[in-house]
Amino acid sequence: MASNTRPIALIVGAGDHLGAAIAKRFAREGYQIVATRRRGDMESLMHDIQALGADATAIHSDARDEQQVIELIEHVEATLGPIAVTVFNVGGNVRFGIAETTAQVYRKVWEMCAFAGFLVGREVAKRMLSRQRGTILFTGASASLRGGIGFAAFAGGKHALRALAQSMARELGPQGIHVAHVVVDGLIENANTAQLMPALYASKGKGGVVKPDALAEVYWQLHQQPRSAWTFEQDVRPSAEPW
Amino acid sequence: MASNTRPIALIVGAGDHLGAAIAKRFAREGYQIVATRRRGDMESLMHDIQALGADATAIHSDARDEQQVIELIEHVEATLGPIAVTVFNVGGNVRFGIAETTAQVYRKVWEMCAFAGFLVGREVAKRMLSRQRGTILFTGASASLRGGIGFAAFAGGKHALRALAQSMARELGPQGIHVAHVVVDGLIENANTAQLMPALYASKGKGGVVKPDALAEVYWQLHQQPRSAWTFEQDVRPSAEPW
Amino acid sequence: MASNTRPIALIVGAGDHLGAAIAKRFAREGYQIVATRRRGDMESLMHDIQALGADATAIHSDARDEQQVIELIEHVEATLGPIAVTVFNVGGNVRFGIAETTAQVYRKVWEMCAFAGFLVGREVAKRMLSRQRGTILFTGASASLRGGIGFAAFAGGKHALRALAQSMARELGPQGIHVAHVVVDGLIENANTAQLMPALYASKGKGGVVKPDALAEVYWQLHQQPRSAWTFEQDVRPSAEPW
Amino acid sequence: MASNTRPIALIVGAGDHLGAAIAKRFAREGYQIVATRRRGDMESLMHDIQALGADATAIHSDARDEQQVIELIEHVEATLGPIAVTVFNVGGNVRFGIAETTAQVYRKVWEMCAFAGFLVGREVAKRMLSRQRGTILFTGASASLRGGIGFAAFAGGKHALRALAQSMARELGPQGIHVAHVVVDGLIENANTAQLMPALYASKGKGGVVKPDALAEVYWQLHQQPRSAWTFEQDVRPSAEPW
Repeated sequence: MASNTRPIALIVGAGDHLGAAIAKRFAREGYQIVATRRRGDMESLMHDIQALGADATAIHSDARDEQQVIELIEHVEATLGPIAVTVFNVGGNVRFGIAETTAQVYRKVWEMCAFAGFLVGREVAKRMLSRQRGTILFTGASASLRGGIGFAAFAGGKHALRALAQSMARELGPQGIHVAHVVVDGLIENANTAQLMPALYASKGKGGVVKPDALAEVYWQLHQQPRSAWTFEQDVRPSAEPW
Repeated sequence: MASNTRPIALIVGAGDHLGAAIAKRFAREGYQIVATRRRGDMESLMHDIQALGADATAIHSDARDEQQVIELIEHVEATLGPIAVTVFNVGGNVRFGIAETTAQVYRKVWEMCAFAGFLVGREVAKRMLSRQRGTILFTGASASLRGGIGFAAFAGGKHALRALAQSMARELGPQGIHVAHVVVDGLIENANTAQLMPALYASKGKGGVVKPDALAEVYWQLHQQPRSAWTFEQDVRPSAEPW
Repeated sequence: MASNTRPIALIVGAGDHLGAAIAKRFAREGYQIVATRRRGDMESLMHDIQALGADATAIHSDARDEQQVIELIEHVEATLGPIAVTVFNVGGNVRFGIAETTAQVYRKVWEMCAFAGFLVGREVAKRMLSRQRGTILFTGASASLRGGIGFAAFAGGKHALRALAQSMARELGPQGIHVAHVVVDGLIENANTAQLMPALYASKGKGGVVKPDALAEVYWQLHQQPRSAWTFEQDVRPSAEPW
Repeated sequence: MASNTRPIALIVGAGDHLGAAIAKRFAREGYQIVATRRRGDMESLMHDIQALGADATAIHSDARDEQQVIELIEHVEATLGPIAVTVFNVGGNVRFGIAETTAQVYRKVWEMCAFAGFLVGREVAKRMLSRQRGTILFTGASASLRGGIGFAAFAGGKHALRALAQSMARELGPQGIHVAHVVVDGLIENANTAQLMPALYASKGKGGVVKPDALAEVYWQLHQQPRSAWTFEQDVRPSAEPW
């Protein structure tokens, strides 16, 4: 039985700065947060969310594994309550020339970007269909829209995710479920960005990187849209990004 | 000299329900509103805005006329203050087979959709460039993205407007000016819709038409985006719209 | 009365190397060529075509002027015979920042790129509709697909032309008329290219510029497609072009 | 050692009418044909090709299996000679609502559409890179460009294939390798079409289905393009197809 009447936001892929920022954005509005990642620490995120006065649950779950995804959704709905909104934020950017792209890399990137999105999207959609409401948000990238040198694997995964999102949006929209796709074009600011790529980061200057909190706002707004004005796709980039 | 320190929202093409809803959305946030249309009454809109406690100015101005646009912007900036945000909402949907499209119609639709957008965009951009800040929002349609039977003129005008918006966004973004394009896919609800197309309107059912107020929210949110997370383009449609 | 039973290829905008190459490509197949440009010499083109054993007519006609276009098509059909294929190859690339783009330039570029395409397309389509056959080919550019810094005017005109082509293709295809749009991405080689931009030209190297004859082949092939396999759009670029 | 100096066309996925038509188109030009499919008969195809005076080899090979693809390319290059052109024509259209799409189906469709394309493309590219020449052609569909109700799996696979093709084209073009993507929009005529879907087939009427031979011509033309005028993408549809 649901332990809590607050609406649930399920953030799949809460291991990066964007996932954390989205979790906190929904927490600030009183949502109880379920944050998942495959492995790695989420303690500091849990702490931040609780400091906002919201309930938070961290679950290690591999979104590429059908059984784990089925169990995750079942567990959340059985013990915490109905999922109001799901954000799928898993991805794995790599860059290799075509001759250097191994089959393992090509497959793994697709599993992270697209197959995991399919599993999460489908399982959540099944629940939302029975309620005829809910929001499913997918994180895309410029590579969702065009291939490029070195991007056969990453663009492949992201293109497939976009096709999934669009197919789901068209099918589920008339049934009251809002599916949307956010195309992030540009570098998202995080600790790693500044530390690992100091020159690139510095070169970006004012308006040069996407701030996770500003981007998280877009996810919140999408979820707030009434069904008479739903956005399927929206690009987001820092003001100084060349495109 | 500026008569008022409140930021100014200039709504060009305030003659339809969307234009009016956008004007009221910004009024609710304390903006002083300058609403223009070529001709026709704006009294009731002025009344609504003033009821919200905001200043409102209605100006008849033909956005397709270079001299009138130059004078409009000059007048607003000289007498009311700097324009913070401009919404270009002029359009003119027509539908004719190619053989039945007159040169006059083809040219007029382009003048309304694209040439007027260029004149307004350019004049406002000049002012905003000197301040290195501001927002310029253009209203698009599905015809901005694809042509169709009977849409040579309308899609031509809307495609050209989108090219303008994209060219301006790329040039002006790094200079602190946010240019965005809203693609409205579906019927916008208004008095005419229900009266003139009762069968179509009824057939749309729940989630079948775009509510002007819900759509106006998108314009407000775009204007609120910090420069680290700017959207260039966003589609909006009712949940039941087939696409 | 038609003076000749050979099919007619009407090349509107035969003043550049591409227009000339297309004219010669069709001449080589036995078409009688009608080549038009607004003004300027076509003597050497006429000579080249006649050397190929084909009939050639050069006509000065301003494609932006409705009356001139109507008279051109009437004259060709009345005195030479039915037009089998029309290539619209008029354009006018310019590059100005938005603040420096004059209304005159913005309008003129649209008139050359889009309005002229509409006039020629419509007048030819009327004739072809009565015969339920024919081919209409439009020359596009990368700017047909995306705007860019400095390209508000040119991208606007080219976007509008593409919307026209797509709208016409959808309407006229089922009636036996093949409408297609060729997106040229890259520099087309011509005398001016090498002379006026020697550094750019040299920097392009092998596979760096589009050869007019190779590009003309694409137009010929499109015209040859049977109605069970029609291409609407096709991009063409030199192998070394970055994109 | 190569047994034959004729250039080789490798058709991967020669089990449908399109694959067979492409094989015969290249055979007619004197290419020796290597036709592969996972299983099933290719005897009649071999007979047809030999009747055209060309050499033909049929190989059963599963394009989704990395080892088999590596061995296939090695075998062809070692025993027959260098591959001049490869056509990747494997696909698997399915249509299921999102809730009814099994993980197995989703994965399998991706393996057929995209993973197999990656394996074949990569292995062939390695050989062609060493020669700095060659052509690689991929067969796409409307689902390569947009998702739709029931098409999460198929559109996902086809989107990923397009991203692969585009990434390869950008990387390999400057190295002399022509990569292109053919978007087939509409029903391709085959024995099954008429037999299995008689009503649909009949309803299509004149210009209602894509003829395999007409479509095969497009592949041949792409391979013939000189490097100064390469097409990356081209759509093909029957004249009466609504789009």
